[in-house]
This record gives sequence, C-alpha cells and structure tokens, in this order.
Amino acid sequence: MKNREAARANLENLYRIFTVPESPDSTLGAIDQAIAADVAGFLQTHIVAIERSLDEIEVHFASATIPEEPTYVSEYTEFVKAHLVAQSVHTAAPGFVGHMTSALPYFMHPLARLMTALNQNLVKVETSKAFTPMERQVIAMLHHLVYRFDDDFYPPWIHNSMHALGAFCSGGTIANVTALWVARNRLFAPDGAFGGIAQVGLGSALRHRGVDGVAVLVSERGHYSLGKAADLLGLGRDNLIKVPTDANNRIDLKLLREECRRLQDRNILPLALVGLAGTTETGNIDPLEALADFAHELGCHFHVDAAWGGPTLFSDRNRSMLRGIERADSVTIDAHKQLYVPMGAGMVVFRDPTALSAIEHHANYILRHGSKDLGSHTLEGSRPGMAMLVHAGLSIIGRKGYELLIDMGIERSRTFADMIRQHPDFELTSEPELNILTYRYCPKAVQQVLATATADQRSGINELLDQVCQLLQKYQREAGKTFVSRTRLRVARYGMELTVLRVVLANPLTTDEILVAVLAEQCEIVRLPEIQVLLQQVAERCTLAETQER
Amino acid sequence: MKNREAARANLENLYRIFTVPESPDSTLGAIDQAIAADVAGFLQTHIVAIERSLDEIEVHFASATIPEEPTYVSEYTEFVKAHLVAQSVHTAAPGFVGHMTSALPYFMHPLARLMTALNQNLVKVETSKAFTPMERQVIAMLHHLVYRFDDDFYPPWIHNSMHALGAFCSGGTIANVTALWVARNRLFAPDGAFGGIAQVGLGSALRHRGVDGVAVLVSERGHYSLGKAADLLGLGRDNLIKVPTDANNRIDLKLLREECRRLQDRNILPLALVGLAGTTETGNIDPLEALADFAHELGCHFHVDAAWGGPTLFSDRNRSMLRGIERADSVTIDAHKQLYVPMGAGMVVFRDPTALSAIEHHANYILRHGSKDLGSHTLEGSRPGMAMLVHAGLSIIGRKGYELLIDMGIERSRTFADMIRQHPDFELTSEPELNILTYRYCPKAVQQVLATATADQRSGINELLDQVCQLLQKYQREAGKTFVSRTRLRVARYGMELTVLRVVLANPLTTDEILVAVLAEQCEIVRLPEIQVLLQQVAERCTLAETQER
Repeated sequence: MKNREAARANLENLYRIFTVPESPDSTLGAIDQAIAADVAGFLQTHIVAIERSLDEIEVHFASATIPEEPTYVSEYTEFVKAHLVAQSVHTAAPGFVGHMTSALPYFMHPLARLMTALNQNLVKVETSKAFTPMERQVIAMLHHLVYRFDDDFYPPWIHNSMHALGAFCSGGTIANVTALWVARNRLFAPDGAFGGIAQVGLGSALRHRGVDGVAVLVSERGHYSLGKAADLLGLGRDNLIKVPTDANNRIDLKLLREECRRLQDRNILPLALVGLAGTTETGNIDPLEALADFAHELGCHFHVDAAWGGPTLFSDRNRSMLRGIERADSVTIDAHKQLYVPMGAGMVVFRDPTALSAIEHHANYILRHGSKDLGSHTLEGSRPGMAMLVHAGLSIIGRKGYELLIDMGIERSRTFADMIRQHPDFELTSEPELNILTYRYCPKAVQQVLATATADQRSGINELLDQVCQLLQKYQREAGKTFVSRTRLRVARYGMELTVLRVVLANPLTTDEILVAVLAEQCEIVRLPEIQVLLQQVAERCTLAETQER
Repeated sequence: MKNREAARANLENLYRIFTVPESPDSTLGAIDQAIAADVAGFLQTHIVAIERSLDEIEVHFASATIPEEPTYVSEYTEFVKAHLVAQSVHTAAPGFVGHMTSALPYFMHPLARLMTALNQNLVKVETSKAFTPMERQVIAMLHHLVYRFDDDFYPPWIHNSMHALGAFCSGGTIANVTALWVARNRLFAPDGAFGGIAQVGLGSALRHRGVDGVAVLVSERGHYSLGKAADLLGLGRDNLIKVPTDANNRIDLKLLREECRRLQDRNILPLALVGLAGTTETGNIDPLEALADFAHELGCHFHVDAAWGGPTLFSDRNRSMLRGIERADSVTIDAHKQLYVPMGAGMVVFRDPTALSAIEHHANYILRHGSKDLGSHTLEGSRPGMAMLVHAGLSIIGRKGYELLIDMGIERSRTFADMIRQHPDFELTSEPELNILTYRYCPKAVQQVLATATADQRSGINELLDQVCQLLQKYQREAGKTFVSRTRLRVARYGMELTVLRVVLANPLTTDEILVAVLAEQCEIVRLPEIQVLLQQVAERCTLAETQER
C-alpha cells in the first residue's frame, strides 16, 4: 500500500517535470527566471574565467555512477551555478581574443530557446515541416553569397525534392568531410560494370582505376579536420599532402606543382585541391584564382575551406580577397564563427546542384525517394533546427550589418598589428589579412640580433623565446582577465617553427583599449621570476652573438 | 557628413544587438518574454500540426538573396511566429506517436538557453573549462550504465589527459560512424613496416592483409546510418551485409553464420558485427549474448547500436533484455531519444578505455598531446555543451525516474498492442518488445482469408492494403490531430514486405485515451471514398479467394 502510494507520488512528480508551467509564478517559472537573470549577470561580467585549476573543478564531476534518486530542479540549478557556470569560460568576453568565439547578438538567446522548445528534427519533413523550407532557404542564401548565380537559377533547385544545394552540419569538420566524401564518390562514380565506390568500396575503386591511392592537397595551414577526413574516408593521412606556404602563409604554387608530379610518379590520383579562405592560425587566404586554374588543369575537385573567412563575402570593400571562390566545386562556411550563431552550425554548399547525389541515401521509414527530407543528403541523421538561428542572423543583421562586422574586425586587426609593430617588446609573426594575427614576446633589441645571427644562435634564442611564449600564454589564461591562444608556426623570416601568440578579432565589443591592456598585461607577466630567468638567458645569448659578430 | 552619421547610427545599432539588455523592460527584454510566452502557448496546444501544404509554406522561404538591410527583432519575431512556429510540427504533442520524439522535461528549456548563452566549445578546455570535466563525467556515467565496471575502475580514466571513455556526438549517426571508424583502424593497426590504415589508407591496408575487402554484418533492421558509415569509411555499401531476421525482427543466427562463410570464400574480412538494441522500425532487440559469442569466434569488433534501447538499462525489471551488451566493444546511445534531451546529442562508449586512440589526432594550436581537450578523440571539431543537458537529466530525473519512464513506455505499448489485437479492423505486424510496435489496417475477416489464401491471392490483397496504409498515414498526418509514421517491413507471417503503421510510445504524456483516439481517427479516415474504393477491391478479392477455396 505504502509502495503504491510512493509510486504514484513518483509518477506525479514525473508528469510535473514534463508539463509546461502555466504561469511564471510557479516554482519552475521562478527557476526559469532565476536562470535567465544568472545568465544575464554572467554575460555582463567582463572577465574571461575565474582562476581555478581543472583539478579543483574535476572534484565536482568525479563520480561515474548515475544518481539513483531524483534531485529538485532548484537544487540542481544551484549546483550548475556554482560549479559549471561560474567555472566556465566567458567566451563572449571582449578580452577573450584567443579563439574564434565572440559575443552573440542577444536575440540569439530567446530564439535558441524557442528552437529547443520546438525541438524539430531536420532529418525529415514529418518532424520539421516549415523548418525544412527554412533550412533550404538558408542553404540557398549561402550558395548565392558564394556563387552569385542569377536569380532565375534558384527557383528550380531551392525546394527541389530530389536535390539539395548544400548540407547543414554540426560544424565545419562535418562540412569538410562531406565535401571530400562527395569528391571521392564522384571521382569513383559508377562506370559500366564498376558499381561505384559508394557501393563497392575503395579497394575495388582503386583497382578499377588502376591507381595505388588518392590524395588531397592543401597548404600546411590546412585545418586538422582535413587530416581526420583523409583518415575517415580511407585515403590515409599520408595522402593528405601538406604543401609549404610562402612568407604570407599562402600555399606555394611552385611546390604544389612539384608535389603533384611526385604523386603522379607514385601512381596516386589527386582527388581534391583544397584552398583556404582564412587559415585557422593566421587568417590568410590562398590564391584561389590560381588554385581554381590548377584544379581545372588536374581535373580534380576544388574545395574551399572558408569556415572562417567565408563571411568576408558580405563586404563590398574586402570581398575581392576571396576572388576565385566562385569557381570552387564546394565551399565550407561555419555559421557559429562569423555568422555569429551559437555553437553547432556549419554548412557546405556545392556549385553543381546535383553534386550531393553522390552520397544520397534512403530508408524505408523516412528519406523516401522524392521526399523533401533533408536527411537523404547529409552525413548526420537527426539534427536540430539550428538553421533558424542563421535565418535570424541573415534577416535581422542583414548583408550590410555583417559587412560592418567584417570590416570592423579587419580594421581592428590592422590597428593591433600597428600596436605590436610599434611596441618595443613584441614582434609580429604574421601579417593580418583578415582579422587574425600572430605575434610573440621578442624585444626589438633581440629582433635585431636575430636578424644577423647564425642559424645556431637563432635557434638557441628562439627556443628560449618559445618557452617564454608558452609560459606567458599559460599565466595569462590562468589569471583569467584576458585571453590569447598560442600555436606553433613556421615563420619564413627565421626559416623555423616558433611558438607564437594568436589573436582573433571578431568580437565587436573588443575595443582598442582592451588590446592595449592585453599587451600591458603580458608585459606584467614576463616580470615573473620564472620568465625572467629565460629572458636573462636570451640576453646572454644575444651578447654572445653580438660579440662573435664583432 | 550625412553618410558618416548614418554609419555611426548603424554601428550603434549593431552594438546594441550584441549587448545584454540590463532590464526585462527594455525592448529586447520584452521580446524575449513574448517569445517565451509564445513557446509556452505552443507547447500547451495539443495538436500535431496545422493543416497546410509544404508548397504554401515554401512561398515564405523562396528568396535566395540575403536581405541587404537589417530588420527589427520585433518584426522578425512576428515573421517567425506566423511562418515558422505556427507551421512547425508539434513533436512534443502526446498524440504525435509516429517518431522518436517526446515532450521534454520543462527544465531542459531554461538550461538549454543557459547553454546557448554560455556558448562553450567542447573541442578544447580553453573554451569550455568546467564543461570538459562535466562531459567526461557524463560519458563515464553512460559507460558505467553499460559496462558496470567496479567503482575503482573509473578514477584513473574519467579525467585522463591521454584518453576518453567515449565520444559525445551530435547524434547516433556520428556515434555509429565513430565506432566503426575505431573498429576499422584497430583491425588495420600499425604493424611493423605497415604504418596503419589511418596513415596509409585502405588500399594499402587491404594489400597488407592480403584481403579483397572488409565487411560489417548487421540484421536487415539495421539503421540506415550503418550504410552511410560503410560508404564513408570506404568499405562500400555492398560490404554492409544485411542478414535477414526471424519472425520477431531479430537477426537470424544461422543465416549470419552462412553470410560469414560466404565472406570467407570471397576473401573478405569481417570488420564488425553490429547488434541492435531496439531497432528503429520495430524496437526489437537482437540476441546480444549470442552475437558477443559469435563476434569473439570471428575475432571481430562487436558494436551494439543501442541508440534507442540503451536507456532500458535504467530499468531493474527490463534490463535483462539487453543481456550481453556489456560484452560489446562499443555501444551507441542517443541522448536526444530516451534520455529526453533536446535534439543534437548522441554518445558512443568503448569497453577498452584506450580504444579511441585509434582515431586520435592533434593540432598545433589546440588538442596538444597530454591536454584534456576532448576534441582529440572526436570526429566532430567545435561542439556545443549539450552534455550539460544530459548531466541535468541524469541528476534531476535520476536512475529511478528514467526507470519509471522506460517501464511506462513498455507497459503502454503492450496495452496498445492489446487494443490492436482486440480491434476488429487492425492487425498487429510486430510485437512490441520495448515501446515501438507496427500494425496496419486489415479487418479480421480479411486476416482470416489471408491465412489460407494462395501466395498470389495474398500478394494481390496485401498490395491493396499497402495502398490503404499509405493513404491512411498521409491523411492522418495532414489532418494534424495525431500522427503515426509508416514504413515497409518484411512480415514473416506473409513472407513478404508490407507497408505498416509505426508507433513509438516514449512520451509520458501520451495516455491510453489518446491511443484509442488514434485508432478511432483511422477508422474515420478509411471511410473516405478514395480508400473505400481500395477496400471494396480487397473485399472482392477475399470473396474470390473464399470461393476458390470451397
């Protein structure tokens, strides 16, 4: 009897949590508002993170056992506020300039909530209805941004039940994988008795064409997702050919040509040439026109990874930097980067509106032939209605609004590059083309020594400066006031790989004053004894180099 | 001068949309509340969809041109309410029992908003901090749910900087792809001079092992994501061997053995055996113990796709149906299914805590060796903090709460199966094992005729009933009061593929009364002249069959 009562009480509690509160005064309504207020408070605080080590945080996430008993929402909310929200990274802070995150337009928050509440599944029309035409429109708009086909091109394709102009993905990685998947399947399309790679696999495909492998070519600045794609698609990471770059981090066309000759000698077929429109580490843009020409000459797929730089196409002033992108067979653009949409939204568009047929698939219960279900042309299955937030961004901000954001970021990175050039203690290690640049702590006097030092002296000094850079970045991150990231980059001037600081300037709330403060804080941090020891060694080696020179 | 003023005004507007409103009385605050109210209103309406054709909806999403000028948030919100929210599918409606969606616990809404506002990126600690240990804990909890290792197993692994116990994904498709990717790379691991498939590709790997291909084996009820995985990974769809099922939609072990012999004859290596724990179409569970034994015999990877049925492990009463799952090398569980989390959350866990090393990757600017960055072991790159919503579900609902949900769904589908069996006009076409069943419109009298009819008579009648079923489902969906899905399924009793209605009973708000209403509505719909014509033909064929029998 008591058990039955307890069971009924449990059941009632369960129903309650699945029921939408009728009024904001209800317990859940109140918690809802409290969370909203907490979020607002968090977002108005302009620090990057609280200084606390990961070890201390892990203590609160240590158990592998799922709790037996339910917890009150209010109790859980308190836990989340103390141990998750307070210990998360303020990726929207104007001083967080180290990675590709930014403040989001505020309207994204209520719309994201709306999206979650509607919980549409874009894999099929039956669970998304209006969201399907909406996503198809978003893809068409991005397609148009890239390819600028005439207005009369789109009506037959945009809502075509047999085709999709592109694929909406969880991010740029899936977008890049999808592009190369399509390229691979088109290279080994069905042909007479050969059933096509999708059907019979890569082993048979290589035998059919009489080649020993297939390769993808990209500059050494290519995103690491391309390595994953080469592994995943069965090409092998060794067949992702990473071509060295010139002094401006752009693919070296002469070396590219040489690599292609070597592939031919090894009986390896070039599957795709990948151009970068905004490299992840330096924001530079490959010579896309020349790459389009060369891909044409090779007869291979030309993919442009514009995950970062794609939205530069919004800008009348800066669009020309991407000239040639309209000749790409496929283009990746991330929405959760410079379209200012929350995390989890990437896209790939294809010049040929039938290209995605190469990966088309069906099932009995959904994705039937001739349905408008978007799932028949995507790598992912069930997917949320994230396209709605892109639709909102494009509608509310508009082409001109995005243009302003893009132009501002480029302008600001030029300003920051000037600050670094003029500062006695820093060295610019890559010129900003878009809104990304790299630099390092390296006083002008040391730069002068390095300019004339021997290769040995140079590498000795640079290795010490690498350590300075690494510690500098670490202590700045841990202090949590501002944040820059770091990477390792071959710097042409020194002919060697250096550890450098990396800054991404996409947050419109980042001001010049904040950038001044970032440098000032770094000058503070290098005064730490641990770093001073290293700088002392740098000074000694410099003296030695100068003495030897005389 | 005027231009400069206009530019400044544009800039100010832009700053405004990126700034968190200070008070709920501000314009954006008011819009925020209006959207929340609209969502609540939508969720309290218990219909599935408004009757409107896709063509009519597409009119509002027809342009491929990105708007030049910005739009007011308020104006856009009105558009969204009229053309997107009102025309979306109410996937949470208790009468929407056709697909794997359900009402969500209400607390998911404010927490999802919180997640969006924090906009963490789980690819690396630098953009997620506390979210990384939190996600690691969630994966460990699911790992423990499946494998039940001792408590002392977890501490060395859960926050291990070199390994991950599983991967959090955008959904079950990526989870299944990840599992098979790991299996493939482990089968062709580096070995002496052979660099491993990840490095040298599938062609060299096949040559190294001296085989002509690799295959994955699964029952014909396997999810379509496995076909995509076979294509993507270079195996080829022909090498996804779909083994027929028994009368209960479970893999036929004898036929499985025969298929393996045939593979051997063709010099094709079995890469993985996939067991299903809750097939998408019928919810049945493969004999996992027997499959574990057989995979051991073959020496191949054993993957269990428990995207749907995994949470059955919460239930003391029903857990035993999945016996053998703890012997799987990898297991997929979707959180956006029976963990009642919004769309976009799947997971795969691996028995061997070092298994994911097979797909490990690094980059210079993130995912450095020895970092706890989760991105070094995932197919996806940048990812949102969806794990937080799983963490919330596990904490707030608890093991016992999920048990109640699972038990209720199974109970309800048994009740519904009884209703169908007892109804004069319907035929059950698959027995519910979990909370999914299929049935069709087929009056008892017709069932009796079919039982003794010749093969020709049977297929003639069944083809007509297929058409009835298809129209019935279509008209019910279009009416928008309730919703069931349909699929095509080989039904053992008739030895042929039939079109059937499919019902998924995971929404705790679905009552027996609603299920009665679903059947009643279907009895109404078959009275439409278009369907009556078909049923008339069925009746004529039945009479003919009976006459011939006598």
